[in-house]
Parts: sequence; C-alpha cells; structure tokens
Amino acid sequence: MKIRLGMIGGGQGAYIGAIHRMAAALDGLYELTAGAFSSDAEKSRATGQLLGLAPDRVYASYQELLAQEQQRPEAERVQVVAIVTPNHLHFEPARQALESGFHVILDKPMTFSLAEAKQLQQVAAGSGKKLCLTHTYSGYPMVKEARQLVAAGTFGPIRKVYVEYPQGWLSAFEEGGDNKQAAWRTDPARSGVAGAMGDIGTHAFNLLEYVTGLQVERLCADINVVVPGRRLDDDGAVLLKLSGGASGVLVATQVAAGEENNVRIRAYGERGGFDWQQADANTLLVRWPDRPAEIRRTGTGYVGSFAQHNARTPAGHPEGYLEAFANLYRNFALTLQAELAGQPAPPEALDYPSLEEGVRGMAFIENVIASGHSDQKWTDFAV
Amino acid sequence: MKIRLGMIGGGQGAYIGAIHRMAAALDGLYELTAGAFSSDAEKSRATGQLLGLAPDRVYASYQELLAQEQQRPEAERVQVVAIVTPNHLHFEPARQALESGFHVILDKPMTFSLAEAKQLQQVAAGSGKKLCLTHTYSGYPMVKEARQLVAAGTFGPIRKVYVEYPQGWLSAFEEGGDNKQAAWRTDPARSGVAGAMGDIGTHAFNLLEYVTGLQVERLCADINVVVPGRRLDDDGAVLLKLSGGASGVLVATQVAAGEENNVRIRAYGERGGFDWQQADANTLLVRWPDRPAEIRRTGTGYVGSFAQHNARTPAGHPEGYLEAFANLYRNFALTLQAELAGQPAPPEALDYPSLEEGVRGMAFIENVIASGHSDQKWTDFAV
Amino acid sequence: MKIRLGMIGGGQGAYIGAIHRMAAALDGLYELTAGAFSSDAEKSRATGQLLGLAPDRVYASYQELLAQEQQRPEAERVQVVAIVTPNHLHFEPARQALESGFHVILDKPMTFSLAEAKQLQQVAAGSGKKLCLTHTYSGYPMVKEARQLVAAGTFGPIRKVYVEYPQGWLSAFEEGGDNKQAAWRTDPARSGVAGAMGDIGTHAFNLLEYVTGLQVERLCADINVVVPGRRLDDDGAVLLKLSGGASGVLVATQVAAGEENNVRIRAYGERGGFDWQQADANTLLVRWPDRPAEIRRTGTGYVGSFAQHNARTPAGHPEGYLEAFANLYRNFALTLQAELAGQPAPPEALDYPSLEEGVRGMAFIENVIASGHSDQKWTDFAV
Amino acid sequence: MKIRLGMIGGGQGAYIGAIHRMAAALDGLYELTAGAFSSDAEKSRATGQLLGLAPDRVYASYQELLAQEQQRPEAERVQVVAIVTPNHLHFEPARQALESGFHVILDKPMTFSLAEAKQLQQVAAGSGKKLCLTHTYSGYPMVKEARQLVAAGTFGPIRKVYVEYPQGWLSAFEEGGDNKQAAWRTDPARSGVAGAMGDIGTHAFNLLEYVTGLQVERLCADINVVVPGRRLDDDGAVLLKLSGGASGVLVATQVAAGEENNVRIRAYGERGGFDWQQADANTLLVRWPDRPAEIRRTGTGYVGSFAQHNARTPAGHPEGYLEAFANLYRNFALTLQAELAGQPAPPEALDYPSLEEGVRGMAFIENVIASGHSDQKWTDFAV
Repeated sequence: MKIRLGMIGGGQGAYIGAIHRMAAALDGLYELTAGAFSSDAEKSRATGQLLGLAPDRVYASYQELLAQEQQRPEAERVQVVAIVTPNHLHFEPARQALESGFHVILDKPMTFSLAEAKQLQQVAAGSGKKLCLTHTYSGYPMVKEARQLVAAGTFGPIRKVYVEYPQGWLSAFEEGGDNKQAAWRTDPARSGVAGAMGDIGTHAFNLLEYVTGLQVERLCADINVVVPGRRLDDDGAVLLKLSGGASGVLVATQVAAGEENNVRIRAYGERGGFDWQQADANTLLVRWPDRPAEIRRTGTGYVGSFAQHNARTPAGHPEGYLEAFANLYRNFALTLQAELAGQPAPPEALDYPSLEEGVRGMAFIENVIASGHSDQKWTDFAV
Repeated sequence: MKIRLGMIGGGQGAYIGAIHRMAAALDGLYELTAGAFSSDAEKSRATGQLLGLAPDRVYASYQELLAQEQQRPEAERVQVVAIVTPNHLHFEPARQALESGFHVILDKPMTFSLAEAKQLQQVAAGSGKKLCLTHTYSGYPMVKEARQLVAAGTFGPIRKVYVEYPQGWLSAFEEGGDNKQAAWRTDPARSGVAGAMGDIGTHAFNLLEYVTGLQVERLCADINVVVPGRRLDDDGAVLLKLSGGASGVLVATQVAAGEENNVRIRAYGERGGFDWQQADANTLLVRWPDRPAEIRRTGTGYVGSFAQHNARTPAGHPEGYLEAFANLYRNFALTLQAELAGQPAPPEALDYPSLEEGVRGMAFIENVIASGHSDQKWTDFAV
Repeated sequence: MKIRLGMIGGGQGAYIGAIHRMAAALDGLYELTAGAFSSDAEKSRATGQLLGLAPDRVYASYQELLAQEQQRPEAERVQVVAIVTPNHLHFEPARQALESGFHVILDKPMTFSLAEAKQLQQVAAGSGKKLCLTHTYSGYPMVKEARQLVAAGTFGPIRKVYVEYPQGWLSAFEEGGDNKQAAWRTDPARSGVAGAMGDIGTHAFNLLEYVTGLQVERLCADINVVVPGRRLDDDGAVLLKLSGGASGVLVATQVAAGEENNVRIRAYGERGGFDWQQADANTLLVRWPDRPAEIRRTGTGYVGSFAQHNARTPAGHPEGYLEAFANLYRNFALTLQAELAGQPAPPEALDYPSLEEGVRGMAFIENVIASGHSDQKWTDFAV
Repeated sequence: MKIRLGMIGGGQGAYIGAIHRMAAALDGLYELTAGAFSSDAEKSRATGQLLGLAPDRVYASYQELLAQEQQRPEAERVQVVAIVTPNHLHFEPARQALESGFHVILDKPMTFSLAEAKQLQQVAAGSGKKLCLTHTYSGYPMVKEARQLVAAGTFGPIRKVYVEYPQGWLSAFEEGGDNKQAAWRTDPARSGVAGAMGDIGTHAFNLLEYVTGLQVERLCADINVVVPGRRLDDDGAVLLKLSGGASGVLVATQVAAGEENNVRIRAYGERGGFDWQQADANTLLVRWPDRPAEIRRTGTGYVGSFAQHNARTPAGHPEGYLEAFANLYRNFALTLQAELAGQPAPPEALDYPSLEEGVRGMAFIENVIASGHSDQKWTDFAV
C-alpha cells in the first residue's frame, strides 16, 4: 500500500515543491493525496487540479488540511505531510502536523531559528511521530559509501575535512528583479539570520557531520555580503575544529560566478582519504598513501550495503539529484512501513536526516553568523 | 488527468520493467493501472499486489489484459500499454495492443526480426495508434542539445562520427550460471540474430542517426564471439558510410572487462564538433577549430529549446538515466495529451523514438550481422 | 661524458627539430655538437649560430656533415646523428650515417616506403650501429606501465584493443596557404603514399603493438580524403585482427575539428583492462570486472620498473610530451653508454623503438592504404 | 651564446637540484659551467664529474666558487648562480653572489626569515644584479593566461579567491626514518618557523597574488601539527582579506593522505571566474554566469601573449612541471640577454618571480604562523 502524502506549499512555479513531488513519485511508495499548495486558495486549487487531486483534498490553508484530514477515516487520511514552504513557514505547520498525528517531511533548514528547532524537537518527541529533513546530498549512494567506509575505520580517524558549496546564481543583485527564489532567500524576514549559510552552508555542514561522524565543536567564520544592497550573507568561509581533534574548512558562496551546484567533500585519515562531488555524483574517489587511488561507483557489486540499498540502476547508468532526493523519501517510507508492520527497519532504511540533524543545522546557522560578527577567533559551537 | 498505463512483462526481478515504472512515475503523468507482469499467473498477481494495483486489473496473460481492458469503459480502461518483455515477445503483444486500440510503449529493439518490425509499422499505421520505442539515450537533454546544434548547421555538415558502447558484464560465460539477463540476451531464440549488436549496438546506431540526422547507407562489420561457448556475438566494430558523404565508426562490445555503460558519441563538421558520453551525461563538450571548447550543461539558461524542455532541475543537480528514460515517457504523454485536447503538440514533445527508428534499428541488426558473415567489404544497408 | 650529437634537418622554424633538441637536452646526456640544419647552406649556418655551435661544425649538407665528422678524431666527432627531415629525406641520410659509423636517431615514419625500410634494416644490421626511431608516445611512463602490466599477464590475454588518434588541424585546406607543416605532410612526393595514416596512424599502430605485445595480422581499412583538393588521406578507420585471436579498431583522423592530439589506447583481457590517453598522460586507468577501477600515476612508488625508470619528478608534478620524447633519447643514450662501457644495459634502457618497429610501421602504411583501395574485406598484413 | 651557470647545492640525491638542472637545460639557453654541489668536497667533486663539468670548475664550497669564478675572465666565468640548498642556506650564498657580481636564481622560499629577505632585497638593489625566485607554478602557461585575463578585466574585479595545495607525503612521521626531504623540511633549524606553510603554503600564496594581482592585507590562520612528534606545522587553513575588498581562502596541508601535488586556484569576479589545477595543467577552465564554460588550452592560437610565449609544443602535447620550471629559467635568460644586448626585454620575458615576491612570501610565512598562535581573529599582513 502506498503511503498517503499531503503537501503544504509547492504551488505552481515553486521550485522545491516540484522536486519533492518527483522524489515522492519515483519509487511508487507514496501517493500524493492532499495538498494546501498555497496560502492563495485559488492557486492551491489550481495546483491541485493540475496534479489530478480530488477537489475535496485540496485545501486553502495548511490549518485546513491538517484539521480536515484528521477528521477522515484512518484508512483514507494522509499519513505524512511534506512541508515545502520558505524557512519562516516551517515551524508552525510542522508543529501542528506532528501534534495532529501526522509524520512530517520537512525541507531544510529545519526552522527559522535555533529556538524553534529545539522546540520542534520536543514537540516531535512528545508526538510519537517521525520527521524527515530533506538534506538531499546525504541521499547520494556514494556519499553513503563514504560514510560507511569512514565508520568502518577504513581511513583511520579522520584528521582533516574540506567541504565546499560554490554557487554563482546570486553574483548579481537578482533580488532586484522578479526572481522569486532570490527574493525570499535574501530576505531576513523569510530566510532567517543567514542567506548563503542557511541555504547552502547548512547542506555543507550536514554533509560534513553525516559523512565523517564528527561534530563541529568550534568555528571561526568570515561571513561576507559581496553584492551591494544585499541584506544577507552571500559568501562565507569557516575554519572548523571537530570532535576527536580533527579540523576542517567549510566554504559556501553564492557569488562564484559561473559555478552551478558542485557541492564537494574531501576527508583524510592517516591511512587514506576520499573525495566526492556532486558533478560526478556516482563516483567516490578513494585515495591511499601507497597504492593507486580507487574509483568506487554507484550500482556496482563491490560497494557497501548502504550504497547498494540506495541505488536503482546498473553501474554506469547515472543516478542523479532526484534519485538522491528520492532516497530520503524512500527510506522514510520504508521506516514507516516497518513501523506499521511492527517490524524493525534495517539500518539502511533508518538512515535519513531527522530532528537531531535539524537542530544542529540551525545551531550552525546561528553560530556561524555570530562568529562572522565576532572579533574573537574561535566561537564555541553552542546548541 | 493522468494517463492510465498497463504493463506487459516486468514481473518481480525483471530489470527493465522496474525502470519503465520509475520512468512512468517520475513526472506524475501516468498511473500504473493494470498489468500482465508474467506469463506465470501467480507471479503476475504477486507483482500486481506489490505495486498496489487493484486485483481485478492484474492479469494472467497479455491477451487477457488486452481483452479485458478493451471491455472497460473508456474513462477507466488503460490508454497505453508498455511492453517490457524479451525481444521475442515484442511483436505479438505490440501488434495486438495496437489493433485493440491501445497506444504502445515498447522496449527496444522493436521486434525479433526486421520482417516483424516492418509488419508492426504497417499495423500501427492502420491502427491510428502511436508507438514509443524506448531508446533511452536519445532522452538525455545534452543529446538533444547536440542534435539541435547539428540541425541548426552549427558545425557545418557532419563529416565524421564515432559512436561506441563498451560494456564488460559479459566478459565471462555468465549465461552458464543463473544470470537471467545474460541467459536470454545470449539466446538466439529469445534475443534474435544478434547479441551485443541487438542489445547495445542498436542503441549506438539509434544515437548516431538521431543526433546527426544522417542515415547509414553502407557498412562493413567485424562481428565476434569472444567468450568460448557463447551463442551470439558479444563484440563488434563497424565501419559506416553515411548519407551526405560522411563516414563513421560504431563500436559495441560486452567483453570490455571493467567497463560499465559509457555510451559515447562524437561527431565533427568543418566548423566544429561535439562529444557526449553517459558517464558525464549533463555535459556536452563542443569543440571549435579556433576558439576554446565549450562545456554546455543541462539546466542552464543558454541551451536550446529541446534541452530546456527535457530537464527538471537547476544546473549542477545531475539528471541521470531515469530522467532520460522518463523524458521518453513524458514526451509521449504530452503528445497523447495534445491529441486528446485536439491541439498540436510542440516539436519538443513529439521528439521520441518511434516506428521508423524501430524499423531502422532492426535493419541495422540484420545488416550488421550479415556483413559480419560476409567477405565483401561493404554491405548496402537494406531495409 | 655527454654523447656528441649531430643533427640533420631542423632549421629555424621547423617543428620537430626543436622538439628533438629539447628532448636531447633535458637530461644532460647529449651535447649538440654539429648540424646540417638545412639544405640551404646559409639557413643551416644561421641556425647553427643561434644554437651556439662552433662554426666549423655547421655544415651545408648532410653529406658534408657525415664526411667531415668521420674525419675528426674519435674523441671529438659526433657519435649519434639525429635525422629530423620530412619522410622522403629519411632513408639516404640514415643509410649513409649508419654506413659511416654513426648511430642514428630517426624521426618516424622510418622511411618513405616499406622497401626502403627493409633496406635500412639490412644496412643497420651490417653496420653494427644502432637506431632509435622516435615514436614518442611509447616514451610515456604510463604507457610503459600498461605494457608491463600486460606483459605480466595482469589482464589475461588481451582480447580487444581500441586505439585512436584524432586531430583537427587539417579540417580545412591548410596546404593552400603558407602552412609548411600542412604542405609537406599532404604532398605525396614528400610524405609518401599516406597522409594521416603515415603521420599519426603509424603512431597509433606502434602504440598498439608496443603496449599489447600483439601483432596486426589482417586489416580492413576505410581510408578517406575528406577535405576537397587534398592529395592524401586525412582520415581513416581500420578493423584489425591481431595475433592470438584478439581484434581491434584503429582510428586516425586529421579532420576532427577542434581536436588536439589526444591519442588514446584501451585494451581488455578477461580479467581487466586499461585506458590511457595523452590528455591525461600521467594517469593509467586500470579497470577490473569486480572491484574498483584504479588510477595509476607517474612518479608514485607503486608503479613498475619501466614507469619508475622513465620518470623524473614526484607524483603530481606532471611530465609531458617533451619528457616522453626525452625518454627515447635517454634510453638510447643509456644503451650506448652501456655498450661503450662494455656492460649490459638494463631492459628498461633497451626499451626504445628501433628498426623492427620502423619496418612494421612502414608495412602498416602500405597495407592500410592498399586495404583502403580494396573491395576485399580483409587484407593480410604483409611485411 | 649560452649563459654560463654555476650551481650551489644540488649534490647527488638532492631533489630540487636535479630539477633546476633539467629546467636550465631544456631550452639550451644555459650551460652548466661550475658548481659547489655539496659542503662535502668529495661529494661535490663526484657530482661535478657525473655532470661532465671540468674538474677545475667544481668547488668544495660556495665561497670558493664565488671567489674563484670572480677571478676568471669575464668571457669565461659564470654569469648566474643557482642556489638550491635548504632554506637556512639561502641568504648567505645569495648575498655573497650578488655582491660578487653574479645574477642569482634562488629556490623558494627566499630566505630563512623575513628579516633576511628584506636585507637581501637591499643587497640586490645595491648590486645591480637580478634575482629570479623559482615559484614554479607561476611558470605554467595557463596560470599566465589566467593572470592576463584577470589583468585585462575580463572577469571584473576579483571578489573571491580559493587557493589550495594538498599533499599527503607527510601523513606519517616520515622524519623518523631516513627520508632526507622530510628531515630538513620538518626541522626548524633548517626550514624556519614554518613547515607546510613555508614549503607549499608560500607557493599557494604566491600563486594567489601573482594571478589575481591582489595583495593579502589581513589573515586569520588555523595552523596545525597533525602528526604526533612533528616539530613544525604540517597543515593549515587561512582566511584572507585582499586588496580591493576581495576575500579568499588558502589551504595547504601535507597530511591529506593519498594526495599528490594538485595545487589549484579558483577566482571569481562579477562577470566570470576561472579554475586552474596542476593535475590538468594545460587547461584553464573559464566560467561565465550566462554562457558555456570555456576550456582554454596551452599551445592553441587563441590564448594570450603570455601563454603563447611560455609554450613549446602544439596543443594537446602536454607541457608539464619541468616546462613550467624551465619557463622561469628561460624568461630570466631572455631578460639577461636583452640587458646584455642593451635592448628592452618584452613584458613576457620580464615575467618571473623576484625579490618583491620573495619578501612577500617570507612575510606570509611569518604572519601566518603568528596568526596561528593568536587568539585575535584578524592579523594585519605586516611586511
């Protein structure tokens, strides 16, 4: 049985809503059943129609969606709510959805502020419901392969990490025109205290902690507003001190003119290291001090259980961003199905970003911006 | 409204059936409504259940599917039948589906023999129904970009083409064990007169004719059975003479140990050339005699209308094999929807492989195998 | 003591003469002592002056160089003559040099015709002098690594080989202007029976036989003159049957607009294969059927003795075309020095192309052109 | 006439001395005439013999070399002295060479301390002699192309720069064994206040200032000793504030296990950016916000005058590390020859690193180490 999915946000023209819908659809595990696609009732209705939803499952507001779906018979009502609104509209829908008995899939960053994130964590704990936070890049098979290799001690303890997320799309003052994505992402009222650091810095941060299993303990940030007139940071670089004595560098920028979205992570222990980048997402380059580097590839027989579990096609048939995104949806579905079946989910299915990652992501945003304003070199990573 | 899809073949464990289902699901344009997933009725039933189909839409044979669906009210019955069986089971289901009033999506190569292909072409012409043949690689945005650049005369007339499809998965005698894919693909009774040339050579051939807009007129083939005991070719190389005076080389092998599926095409005119390969599918490398080579990328604003139409995510978020496959499904759906709406479909939607490509693909198989057996240098490409 | 080198050809403006001089200089093993740089005495003199040669060691003709140097005391006269003239001026200088008691370094292809090549082989055998033929690409460390891996049986017997040499510099009718390189290379009176096949096809052929240790036994060629007005082939593709039952494809073209000089070879046995290309010359990609591909690199500690011997810098500091060329000069020098010292040269030093390779290269040219003119599919490789 | 070169340091087994000799030899502009190759007189003599030097031009100490060569007739004595000793032995030989009337080629970093560097700058100014500092990476044609594009305003003012130099060769405690390179480079008495930052950080720093034309004004460094027992830094990351309001990140590490020497620089202005790395040294990737990225290549006709001037082979024949190194030697020679001829040298020849770069490099070392020890976020770049 497919899991019934309701969506909050994602009206026509929204970027991330369409991505979520494709990710949910790919593996046939979800059925988009209901939606409050816009705070504009007419727009919500039109989107619902376009998507082929039954008219009575298309709502004018998320409150209405939650209230009405709760009334429906259990076998009919949505089981999971996906929230794909801008950052300032994450907390309330998520909180209410959890308290109304729905599982939640939430776009990142988790909330508008760290305080909200911690509150949401408590709400979730009390609700008995689960939350999946869509840190897409952790869904790539070769990212999971890297994590599994690190966790197995393949490289020895990680000593150095470099993570970067260079974009170029905000090289000019895009928010001055009619670019809606640029408008809300550079608006403190909708994005929060951070621009680039919230939008893509959090992805880099999550990737680092996810793959290495280490935690940021202190940081030192250079946060910049490069484009004149911009109200939030569009560029930053951060020195990191990590648990276990490692150090790292995190770079995120939206003014690297001509760059697309080549998020990349490299890490090194005494016995070797690895290199992964989205531009060549199905390759994990593994380097050794004294023998040839290896090219590990999605879809092969020799990769670990996590990479195997998160791939769909034979080696050499590239899996991309939507497949990585779909892996989050798929693992969340498998976890919920296991719960419904009263069976334990395998570790590969349980491997999706959740509340802890969300809280730490929001802590990153607040700490990194604080460090950017500070004259002190090192800022403790406070959660 | 979603298009109602029935599937013939694709029971649990089948490779290509699962691919078709994901491709159909990705864009939310189809609803898998019915299926005859196996000639084993129980297996068909089990697959249908797993996929969440209504039990009365799961059939024990394709004949039953066609007959029963035809009986259903128009608003309910499947509109398109996807046929994902081995080659020897393409023609009959496809013929009957067309004659029963269903559109058809058919896995490649189109049929078991050229004679069947030509017959199917006639049947289709008489039926008024449409057929989409899933030559996946023609669905990649950057392949379409190459085609559009060539068609616009960007490089001048194409003079030289290299196309290759190296695989390594049949380097050993896999059909000796329990590898089902290897078993049927190396079996003349199920695969046809060709092994590698039918399985992947046809993809290379289609890619060549699709991108360059040229036709093979003569060929000279070296066809080999490399692995002892194998009953069909597992390797071949073909010299080509193309319309307009161009020449080319086509290589397809399944014994290139360690190779995955890096199908690649390069072509050159007097004013420039291009290079595309599946391993870096979102890049089209364009070379010029007297200025820097260009890296054209999926999802950017500067690519042509066909590449734009066939992409879903912003540049740098890789689209892969499933997205390319889904483009075939999507364009076919858009074409059918336009027809239903009584409107002309845009050229970008009409751009999917169909009967003509299928007939030429089968002609390639028969001509190339004939040339392989011939002592004569050049064999005319007979259709 | 440095080896005293005389040069025939290579006047100012000549391409390959300057390359030879840099290759000879790099390792400090040769001293350019004498030269007949041009058949134009004044030009020869001017070149000699520019190069800082003593005026009495600069000659107006190669005959004069050979005659006069022979007169000089043994401790003073040149020991090796490098011949860097166009193809039609290879045989006579080389023959006379050998007969006059000089070792010879000769640019490829060895001669103007196969008959000349075989004659030169006899002359050399009678002279007791050695000859080094500058098939540059065999000098790359990672090419030698590939050869050593193949020879050790790492991949099992080689079953399939692809070699290609795509260039674009003759995409237009360059010989119509003042491009001297284009002029002689497309002129049957100076280049011989072949254009592209002689200029770069021979390199590809040599690379194939050198790396795989196999010999071409039969071939089937498609030889083309693509650019109107051109007098020799500028494009070709060749199907190959190799010793031991392997097959191959050789491609060489000078009309691949925008291509530089990315000569590439791939070969596969049952247990694995390799991939080398000049554009990434310090990498040898080694593929396995069941484990990650390996990236072998120049200058590392894990490569074999031949790759070690032919490298100068630590890994990651790229060695290029001149270093590969210099390896030929260096190995020839080490061989001559060992001979002078009455000691056996190590196999790594003895590893430079010589007469046998030269004769087979000329046979390739004549056979491939003959096959191009033939209606018969397979042409036996006659030497 | 070749320039007569004397060498200080570079005895058998020394790494960088051999590199200098090959760089000097490649273009035939220098003749290695004299040497004091070791402070061990016998070792110096043996090296000189191996190199074929006249015995009376091989000296037991650099003092002897300078004194004796000064006595020789002008037409005979060395004109340039190359100093290739460890850091602590740079200043005295360089000072005395300049004061004795010799031009100097000096390995980097310029001296042992900033104070020495500034003193050497004064000495040089007073001597009328020239100094070339071998920051190799600035010799690559595509690095020069990047610099010329930046200087022409192609990208607009540079706003963000990333430069990195990852190595892995000191991942373990190499200095505990008999690795001489590791021994002196990790020894404060021979290397100076910095390890990695002096050895490779200075290269990254020089590359950044050279290519962008910007100057570091403030920095914030995280400097680490990763390998237990090591006495100098083996890892560091530095946030940079640059002239003109730009910012940057500099990374240098010697504990990135498995990394070779892939120094890389990326920079971005509002209108575009570039990317260069040593692993693909003949490519300059140029990115634009709104059109395809470009691949600029060594040896092509479309590159600028600096790239043209610093290349030797046609496009596609890779030039490597030794060629880049040789470009420094070559440009220094052309500058000296122009001076001897009383003519102005072209700007392309004058383009080699010299005293100013040396002083700033030493200032970088001292400032970056100071910042590493500081609790203050930003350290002004003091010279």
